[in-house]
Amino acid sequence: MMHRRNKQRELLLMIFVLCLFAAKTSSKYNYQTKYLDVPLDHFNYVNETVTFKLRYLTNDTYNSDGSGPILFYTGNEGDIELFAQNTGFMWELAPKLKASLVFAEHRFYGKTLPFGNASYDSPRNLGYLTSEQALADFAYLLAEINPSNRTTRGRPVVAFGGSYGGMLAAWFRMKYPHLVLGAIAASAPIRQFDAGCGVFNQILTSVFTVAYTRECSQNIARSWETLKNYSSTADGLKVLQEKFKFCTNVTKAEDITGTFFDYLGDVYGNLAMINYPYNTSFLAPVPAYPVREFCGRLAENYTGVELVSRLQEAVSIYSNYTGTTKCLDISSSYDSSMGDKGWEFQTCTEMMMPMCSEGTGKDMFPKKPWDEKKFSDDCFKKFGVRPKPKVAFTMYGGLYLDGVSNIIFSNGLMDPWSGGGVLRTGNSKVLVVLIPEGAHHIDLRASNENDPGSVEAARRIHVENIQQWLKQYRKANNYR
Amino acid sequence: MMHRRNKQRELLLMIFVLCLFAAKTSSKYNYQTKYLDVPLDHFNYVNETVTFKLRYLTNDTYNSDGSGPILFYTGNEGDIELFAQNTGFMWELAPKLKASLVFAEHRFYGKTLPFGNASYDSPRNLGYLTSEQALADFAYLLAEINPSNRTTRGRPVVAFGGSYGGMLAAWFRMKYPHLVLGAIAASAPIRQFDAGCGVFNQILTSVFTVAYTRECSQNIARSWETLKNYSSTADGLKVLQEKFKFCTNVTKAEDITGTFFDYLGDVYGNLAMINYPYNTSFLAPVPAYPVREFCGRLAENYTGVELVSRLQEAVSIYSNYTGTTKCLDISSSYDSSMGDKGWEFQTCTEMMMPMCSEGTGKDMFPKKPWDEKKFSDDCFKKFGVRPKPKVAFTMYGGLYLDGVSNIIFSNGLMDPWSGGGVLRTGNSKVLVVLIPEGAHHIDLRASNENDPGSVEAARRIHVENIQQWLKQYRKANNYR
Repeated sequence: MMHRRNKQRELLLMIFVLCLFAAKTSSKYNYQTKYLDVPLDHFNYVNETVTFKLRYLTNDTYNSDGSGPILFYTGNEGDIELFAQNTGFMWELAPKLKASLVFAEHRFYGKTLPFGNASYDSPRNLGYLTSEQALADFAYLLAEINPSNRTTRGRPVVAFGGSYGGMLAAWFRMKYPHLVLGAIAASAPIRQFDAGCGVFNQILTSVFTVAYTRECSQNIARSWETLKNYSSTADGLKVLQEKFKFCTNVTKAEDITGTFFDYLGDVYGNLAMINYPYNTSFLAPVPAYPVREFCGRLAENYTGVELVSRLQEAVSIYSNYTGTTKCLDISSSYDSSMGDKGWEFQTCTEMMMPMCSEGTGKDMFPKKPWDEKKFSDDCFKKFGVRPKPKVAFTMYGGLYLDGVSNIIFSNGLMDPWSGGGVLRTGNSKVLVVLIPEGAHHIDLRASNENDPGSVEAARRIHVENIQQWLKQYRKANNYR
Repeated sequence: MMHRRNKQRELLLMIFVLCLFAAKTSSKYNYQTKYLDVPLDHFNYVNETVTFKLRYLTNDTYNSDGSGPILFYTGNEGDIELFAQNTGFMWELAPKLKASLVFAEHRFYGKTLPFGNASYDSPRNLGYLTSEQALADFAYLLAEINPSNRTTRGRPVVAFGGSYGGMLAAWFRMKYPHLVLGAIAASAPIRQFDAGCGVFNQILTSVFTVAYTRECSQNIARSWETLKNYSSTADGLKVLQEKFKFCTNVTKAEDITGTFFDYLGDVYGNLAMINYPYNTSFLAPVPAYPVREFCGRLAENYTGVELVSRLQEAVSIYSNYTGTTKCLDISSSYDSSMGDKGWEFQTCTEMMMPMCSEGTGKDMFPKKPWDEKKFSDDCFKKFGVRPKPKVAFTMYGGLYLDGVSNIIFSNGLMDPWSGGGVLRTGNSKVLVVLIPEGAHHIDLRASNENDPGSVEAARRIHVENIQQWLKQYRKANNYR
């Protein structure tokens, strides 16, 4: 879980949730799958002849007059098909704008593996896994499929992305404004690098405080000590085993205070992020507003064995909503895949986002300070690298946005990642859209009759601004 | 010369002239010399522990209150001290703005050699010589000496550069707008990559047509055939040897149609670029407006031996203005240095700028088409690389500038490089300043009583805009 797992695993939450979004989703949208040979190293012209195949998905059926805009998804840390299938907003927008759709896969994820199955085998290979190279891939792809020259300008391109993909969309506009007219960056925590390690868990705590009754987060806050007490005796462990029906028998305190605490933290984080107003069916099926459902079962103050029972009932919203799960597998709240390892490497280099819990009074988790030295040592052990804490700000900025334009940063305020998002700018060309009851990049999802007004409004703002940008584009012609 | 030398050497003109500007200039300005360890590869976090020493020069004496702006020169293809000594505009501006001065050296030039004397020994080493890495060096340097964080923003930075340094200044603002408030890009041919191979020589021809009488360029245009005829017989060669007093006896036609033609082309190009309104003393001392002086000696139509005599007199403006030169050394119009080789490598990778002459009626040079295959083959022979003709546009744009802001592109219209410059934009935040009688980035030089009004006006526009940008900066605070 966010505040208990070792730091690398904590940071996997983003990819985790993104995979959740997509897993077991049937194919709703259709596209062509294509591959382009792109340079392995865009920043070294001696090595530039070494290339690999970048996967991208396209759909041209709505671009009836051949000159419409290109809606371009800047793929994040996972299989690009997941993002194509779970970014319904782009699919609904394409016909309105007579636009083409392009979903570009991020190198080292999905089927875009520069060294095939050996991509993750050595630090030498992993050296080519950076956001800068990924953005250069996207630029290279656009230059190929949508060339501009001195007489004819390419079609306008709008970038879209959620979570890390949203960070990439924003950065793509910042770094390649000649290729990208504007960006919709949904739930993009570009300021997470120094947002304060505790902010994620504080927001998470709020979500569980306001969802139903405030007792919900109070019960969770109390539960750690209760569970720890139960875990300290053989009888206590037996009670927990009976209540939670763990798939593997718990036999020692660490099984609870380590593995199970991690699992619970993950579940709380996931529930907050997928706290959508309609039921969704990912790794596990959950109801609409799953946090509200969860907290409905922890609505009064409980202690002792009653707290344990109620907690079990609440957690089953996530672990056993259909009632068909035989036992609770706490070894992981999701399947590990190659994508995880890639994101872990990225957090060990340019994407380190410190996480901590400050404990009583501040959040609902046991106090756990951020330990940068340990994080760095773990990275070194695993990948032979150490994180560069300031480098993303040097490369991309993000704190001060007065030099950039045509970016919308949207954040659901009920999304724990919003604490690292852009919630305010003094630049009229960088728009902030807040969705008070929104979870993780809900605005990029397909519209749903249960969407609250704020989500509909966010999507309207996106569309209005994109249309504005397109108007600017048609007017601007700087070459001649 | 521009249109006769092999293509790589043609493109050395920029560095050549920049070196001319500085060579034998005594130290007018004072600074501290510092070194910072910067990563060899900013785009690979596995290799990032390998560093080298980046040289930069600073002067803080005018920054009396400690919070003034930083005027930052983005060093180009040569020793940074040359640029510090020859960018008087920055030195005159610093006291007015209470600014600090920083001149950052470009990797692989001057004393900033990542692999010491072995820097140029292998393509492997040269792989780290790119404009992208150089800009990342500058960003890294600024992040170190002028940090921003969520509570305190660094001091505002304005980038300056001329020629390739001007390209870097503009690109620095485009790519790192969070670090650089604005850029003065003087004589920066960011569009040279596809400006048309003949434009350089066409502008050069105009300069020699309007400087005095139109007969000047007509005489030059005619001279190639005349010289060639003389070179075809032993008697003719003797006449030329007598007239020009070559240091090494000319013994065959190729000495004239090869070496001497190259030399003449270089001299014409150089004269145009350093066609300043005051006498300058570089590799060779030249008078004020040297092209006018040159053309004054070719003011009527000449043929045959008289043309040869007059041409010799005209060329001596450049080769022997002081009258102390004993013989004419046509082997090179400048000393080759390591800087040349670096720029040659850059033109063989991301900086290829096609050059050609179209001949009779279009320019004053013998017809010589652009031969990209030969250029590429020569690059491959020399460095094992081939040029990437489109890559600079993919990485930086430049044709369409509607997505960027706070850049001034200044161009002297009498500068042959202006054909690749930005002479028009539809973006009110990207300013174009034309200096009708200006030579190569004259506006960056120290003010001189002989400066024409248009140069003074250009500098005033620079200052007014910088002050405007500084006002914006004080108002903008996007983080909180």
